[in-house]
Amino acid sequence: MDTSIESTIERIAKAARAAGRQVAKAGAAKRTAALLAIADAVGRRRDEVLAANAEDVAAAEASGLAPAMLDRLRLDAQRLAGVQRAVREIAALPDPVGQIVKEWVRPNGLKIGRRRIPLGVIAIIYESRPNVTTDAAALCVRAGNAVVLRGGSEAFRSNQALARCIEDGLIAGGLPREAVQLLPTTDREAMTALLQRDQEIDLVIPRGGEALIRFVAERSRIPVIKHYRGNCHVFVERTASESSGLEICYNAKVQRPGVCNAAETILIDEPIAKSFLPKLAERLQEAGVELRGDARARQLVPSMKPATDEDFATEFLDLICAIGVVDGLDEAIRHIERYGSSHTEAIVTRDPEAARRFVDEVDSSTVVVNASTRFADGGELGLGAEIGISTTRLHAYGPMGAEELTTTKFVVFGEGQTRS
Amino acid sequence: MDTSIESTIERIAKAARAAGRQVAKAGAAKRTAALLAIADAVGRRRDEVLAANAEDVAAAEASGLAPAMLDRLRLDAQRLAGVQRAVREIAALPDPVGQIVKEWVRPNGLKIGRRRIPLGVIAIIYESRPNVTTDAAALCVRAGNAVVLRGGSEAFRSNQALARCIEDGLIAGGLPREAVQLLPTTDREAMTALLQRDQEIDLVIPRGGEALIRFVAERSRIPVIKHYRGNCHVFVERTASESSGLEICYNAKVQRPGVCNAAETILIDEPIAKSFLPKLAERLQEAGVELRGDARARQLVPSMKPATDEDFATEFLDLICAIGVVDGLDEAIRHIERYGSSHTEAIVTRDPEAARRFVDEVDSSTVVVNASTRFADGGELGLGAEIGISTTRLHAYGPMGAEELTTTKFVVFGEGQTRS
Repeated sequence: MDTSIESTIERIAKAARAAGRQVAKAGAAKRTAALLAIADAVGRRRDEVLAANAEDVAAAEASGLAPAMLDRLRLDAQRLAGVQRAVREIAALPDPVGQIVKEWVRPNGLKIGRRRIPLGVIAIIYESRPNVTTDAAALCVRAGNAVVLRGGSEAFRSNQALARCIEDGLIAGGLPREAVQLLPTTDREAMTALLQRDQEIDLVIPRGGEALIRFVAERSRIPVIKHYRGNCHVFVERTASESSGLEICYNAKVQRPGVCNAAETILIDEPIAKSFLPKLAERLQEAGVELRGDARARQLVPSMKPATDEDFATEFLDLICAIGVVDGLDEAIRHIERYGSSHTEAIVTRDPEAARRFVDEVDSSTVVVNASTRFADGGELGLGAEIGISTTRLHAYGPMGAEELTTTKFVVFGEGQTRS
Repeated sequence: MDTSIESTIERIAKAARAAGRQVAKAGAAKRTAALLAIADAVGRRRDEVLAANAEDVAAAEASGLAPAMLDRLRLDAQRLAGVQRAVREIAALPDPVGQIVKEWVRPNGLKIGRRRIPLGVIAIIYESRPNVTTDAAALCVRAGNAVVLRGGSEAFRSNQALARCIEDGLIAGGLPREAVQLLPTTDREAMTALLQRDQEIDLVIPRGGEALIRFVAERSRIPVIKHYRGNCHVFVERTASESSGLEICYNAKVQRPGVCNAAETILIDEPIAKSFLPKLAERLQEAGVELRGDARARQLVPSMKPATDEDFATEFLDLICAIGVVDGLDEAIRHIERYGSSHTEAIVTRDPEAARRFVDEVDSSTVVVNASTRFADGGELGLGAEIGISTTRLHAYGPMGAEELTTTKFVVFGEGQTRS
């Protein structure tokens, strides 16, 4: 490894650690002021950001980046207004730092409290969308943390321009500029060096495809919160309202198929399959969804392709849907245990006991009764914003908002107590 | 790596995953019944456990194990009664599984809740004390988890005998016997294979010396909660009550010097050093404490040895104490930032503003005002029992009880809502 890269990364990590202490101490009002100033700076530097982005887009087009990726990369006046709005919304969130989560008194008179404190320093590693730069920075600062950002190489100029807006805002708000630092290179070497700084960085959140997440998880000495796959299920139970079942399945699959909380598999309870499945198939096929069914589903709707075992394990992120017919709740739960990714599953039912068992026994980070899987999202659940959706159970499970970027410490008030 | 060890470990890990689901579903009453039955089984198999332990002790003596380690290893009727009592206390703790941590309603009518669920499968890797076998198993089961135990080789026969008691109890309580599994070997190879099973195991907690913790952290693909060092400080601020300062320093240093929440460094505020420090030195020296002071402290108490920079960074775990004189709260906080281990620090003061600033600005997992550092303990803080004390910030920071062995999932109840 190039020692100059290592020493650059060391300097950045140490500066982040020191800045994190300042952000934590600064208090909610200063953090809010800095966030609002970041949003203002994005407005002020609009032309500069758009010009940098145009260069990124031109280079990406020349290198033949796929149209979907180009679309993620591209900023325009409207999207930049969205960037500002998102930062202002985060500025308006309740500041979690200092909240007393619990308090109690011990028999010896000690007053104990658990107080919310920032995690410290967070590294965010992401791909092509430049708005992650401001969203992630704002949410980390809201929760009192410093952050080191490493975006994708195709968005490097855009990210640098946004980082200048962030720096303006931090300084205007009286926070150290090192509270948010963008790595000065997108080399993998630099990222690997960053992942070794477990003395200064408390948490790494990779946001992107499975390859990126595995790359980070395999090299990191720092704890990583992973968001692997969203292989989400809807189970239409025998007592379901037919119209509700149709609406929820349609919304979960079709409304935005490319995102992690879209449904990939729909399971139909056997007693209603004969009447329900043909109607569902018709609605989905009209919307252009390719259906892949198990043997029982294909008996009822022969136009479906046969589903392989792998289809049931796949996150299509596309207008493709696996369909299975199951014999009741237990078989549905076993299917989800076997193929699911612990992200989000929904049941449609009018039987309170079936709802209760589904919620108790399904092991996913979000379990939904009679609503679309698409609500598994920080904003929709009321967290205000999200930095990602954890599919591992440690520290946070499911959508992560500002509170999930904090931890708690014990605070003990005595009057001279000693231990005997 | 020996493939037969790998396949044994794979079988154990998969059985733990399946058993964990059963323990989670079983409900609080069954978990309580199993825990009480474990305590009963320890009583019933008392002679067998003591005989196994006597063999361990004899082998350890023959191999020349240090007396302090031998003492940790040794069980007798009284200690075994303590083992039973500890398990019964854990059985009496509130069961955290299923608790609703928070509930709210969204503008679209969705009812959202965060519900406490078990972490899943926990691996505990520990050294010579056999009572960790029952304590750790009981606390994991209380929180609805399965656990894989890997104890020290010198306690292997004792741990096997205790594992038979646990198996009896699990079966009597109607839980699967694989809910608590002791590795059949203490080979490092087997431990290393275990640390690769990130598909089945959710968390590893190493309990022991720094070498063990580093070994585990460096090899684990599973998240590790580390408890490295307790380099705890007491700061006697200028407004402190003299008698309270003396009592707290004495208790923090002397009452049990070999544990992680004992004080290692005492900092004295300059304005009171001249009157306070000689009295403190006398009390500590009478108790056999070796004092190592900085230049200003040695001017006041010349009998102290000089303290090196390394002394201030050392967890002595012994009757040795580093002493420093500081110019006020800010210097004390900077000293703690520089040398501390984020475990526990205490201030003695009568100034509410000094107390407030110390609590706000000191970054340790437990911050104490006017009481001994020795209260940084799950039992003393009111958690009922503890599985360790985390000095890293992710998931849990400070003493970890049953609640810290759980996570939360989002539960969403709708009436047909879809996303637009």
